[in-house]
Amino acid sequence: MTTEDDRRLARVALTWLAEPGTRSVHHLVQHLGPVATLDLLLAGDAPDRTLRSAVTARTTAGDARAVAAEALARAERLGARLVTPEDDEWPTSVGDLRLLQLSGAARRVDVETAPPLCFWVRGGWPLGGTLTRSVAVVGARAATPYGTHVATELGYGLADRDWSVVSGGAFGIDSAAHRGALTGGGRTVAVLACGVDRPYPMGNASLFDRIAETGLLVSEWMPGAEPLRPRFLIRNRVIAAATRGTVLVEAAARSGATQTLKRALGLKRPAMVVPGPVTSAMSVGGHEVLREYPYARLVANVAHVLEEVGRIGDDLAPLARGPERPRDRLDDEATQVLEALPRRRTIGLESIAARAGVDVRTAMRKLSMLEELAMVVRRDDGYALAPPTPGERG
Amino acid sequence: MTTEDDRRLARVALTWLAEPGTRSVHHLVQHLGPVATLDLLLAGDAPDRTLRSAVTARTTAGDARAVAAEALARAERLGARLVTPEDDEWPTSVGDLRLLQLSGAARRVDVETAPPLCFWVRGGWPLGGTLTRSVAVVGARAATPYGTHVATELGYGLADRDWSVVSGGAFGIDSAAHRGALTGGGRTVAVLACGVDRPYPMGNASLFDRIAETGLLVSEWMPGAEPLRPRFLIRNRVIAAATRGTVLVEAAARSGATQTLKRALGLKRPAMVVPGPVTSAMSVGGHEVLREYPYARLVANVAHVLEEVGRIGDDLAPLARGPERPRDRLDDEATQVLEALPRRRTIGLESIAARAGVDVRTAMRKLSMLEELAMVVRRDDGYALAPPTPGERG
Repeated sequence: MTTEDDRRLARVALTWLAEPGTRSVHHLVQHLGPVATLDLLLAGDAPDRTLRSAVTARTTAGDARAVAAEALARAERLGARLVTPEDDEWPTSVGDLRLLQLSGAARRVDVETAPPLCFWVRGGWPLGGTLTRSVAVVGARAATPYGTHVATELGYGLADRDWSVVSGGAFGIDSAAHRGALTGGGRTVAVLACGVDRPYPMGNASLFDRIAETGLLVSEWMPGAEPLRPRFLIRNRVIAAATRGTVLVEAAARSGATQTLKRALGLKRPAMVVPGPVTSAMSVGGHEVLREYPYARLVANVAHVLEEVGRIGDDLAPLARGPERPRDRLDDEATQVLEALPRRRTIGLESIAARAGVDVRTAMRKLSMLEELAMVVRRDDGYALAPPTPGERG
Repeated sequence: MTTEDDRRLARVALTWLAEPGTRSVHHLVQHLGPVATLDLLLAGDAPDRTLRSAVTARTTAGDARAVAAEALARAERLGARLVTPEDDEWPTSVGDLRLLQLSGAARRVDVETAPPLCFWVRGGWPLGGTLTRSVAVVGARAATPYGTHVATELGYGLADRDWSVVSGGAFGIDSAAHRGALTGGGRTVAVLACGVDRPYPMGNASLFDRIAETGLLVSEWMPGAEPLRPRFLIRNRVIAAATRGTVLVEAAARSGATQTLKRALGLKRPAMVVPGPVTSAMSVGGHEVLREYPYARLVANVAHVLEEVGRIGDDLAPLARGPERPRDRLDDEATQVLEALPRRRTIGLESIAARAGVDVRTAMRKLSMLEELAMVVRRDDGYALAPPTPGERG
């Protein structure tokens, strides 16, 4: 009899036999399940030649099930866990990768387009719940001080409004976004192209430690896996698919950093670009995307980002949806004012107005109304969100 | 009998009785001609109350025909000329203002939307011919060094490719665009909201002198007219309508500088925005336009601008169009390379490649082909455009 453990082991073994994202492997798992798929591949019956030779190369080097078992043991030792589609914390949004259309990249159709078979996770939060309300902030390693500043501000602003930040683990924009989110006291998720026990680059070791403590380190590759170059492109599809939208902060012309954004476009998720000086080589890639893809949106601040990824409550907390939530009856300005309130602290009137993009008088009027609706409480030093009532969660 | 001089005098008198751009005056002139329209207005028979009181206010202060005659005499003394729709050099594109749709500005429907009745011009070039191949570069007075740099580069690049630059006369972006065009040895046109004899602001006096010498100073207002505040908005419609496209370089949020761009959008002309750092208040206006208007295009350099306003020869030189011009058979890259060649000087291979946005090898291949087609000549220090053959003008 096939046990849950057999299936988990098989999923891990499959990611070792063929790179994650391989479409034919995903198809087989969909139809046969992971255990039968593994048996079939190990028997040399892979449906296409590329996959057959990949499997052969691996099986010459080792025993797939033994490698997988060793990886699971290693993960347990370092406090990491395996998450599979059978687990409650599986992020269902990555299933949309089945629908990903890549234009102008025929040779990659087989790889980079299928949903992950499993994730390795370090960190205390449930993976799916953390990603439900998340935005990817991506960009160049060789970021300018301008880009670093903007990415930090976005990371901070998203965290401050209780959105998770998702990025890779690189220097530059990735690191700046994580640091901003950490400063904002929020959850940040680093999706890696190598094992979660050896995050790359080494120079970010202390940042990775902080992320593992308060956020999540995530990878499709087993502990010990190396950050091989093609893996970054494969990884990018997960960043685009696991989040509600992707923001590109800085990227050189035709660089890898624009690729995650194109994955988001391919998934019909909000794909956002922060513009920059046209005199900066690091803004060329983003401007190119804005010129070429009509659905890419220019964003200049966190309010613009939130406008794209959805308003508070919108299909984020379906359990809380009653037929007559007061929030549903708010006008646009009141909703903006409500959204401008941070989750956990009190904030002054003028800051609310600035964050909501309305004048102070409007902010005051809307806050009075929100107070009457018991959605906002007034304090000595400003306003705060009212504690949630039972059955209502933001 | 009505002479041509009567008609010219009447047009001038009408711009004194009511601000240029007044739709009802334009309608009357279309149906009755300028002389009968003037008689009608002076008889107190203007079709609407606003116009009637405007006319009364003026006629109390002076005699419209005498004022117009004095303006014409004054223009002659200072070397300016009056250009009317009856003149060969009338820029016919401003006639499109009849079609201008202004959204969200109902109170301005009557003013700012009609074609000009006449232009006052200082400078040696024919007005219409100069504007046929022109791009407006507009933006903030309080420009940053970044904006000034970009506007200067655009002005230079356009002039270098034999496009006229059109702008207002303000400090900041306007001045930078003119200076760039002057440095590029091209024609630049300042469209003023006051008399061409007293260009405003005074601090730009030497710039205006240089423009009058090598380009054009243009106004709908008679010599001596003051730069009243509403006139700048009325003037903006001419900048949008007289050019083949408008580029906004820097603008504060909801500023007047974005208004010319919205006029271009209303006229369905290319409306372009140069992005900038999201940390700069002077980039907010442009980013807003890019976010709000799907037809506004992000441009980062002069090549992008030329892509929007049309390729060399496209409906710019209809007389030169034969059924089999070699240019029509060029592929995109060859066209780009051809466009990268300046009008009057020789340029090196690498500069051509950079300007065309192709690699050096491609540039070389395309240049050989263009040389064979006798469209390009090779020189010791690079390549140059071949002299035009009879019947062919770019």
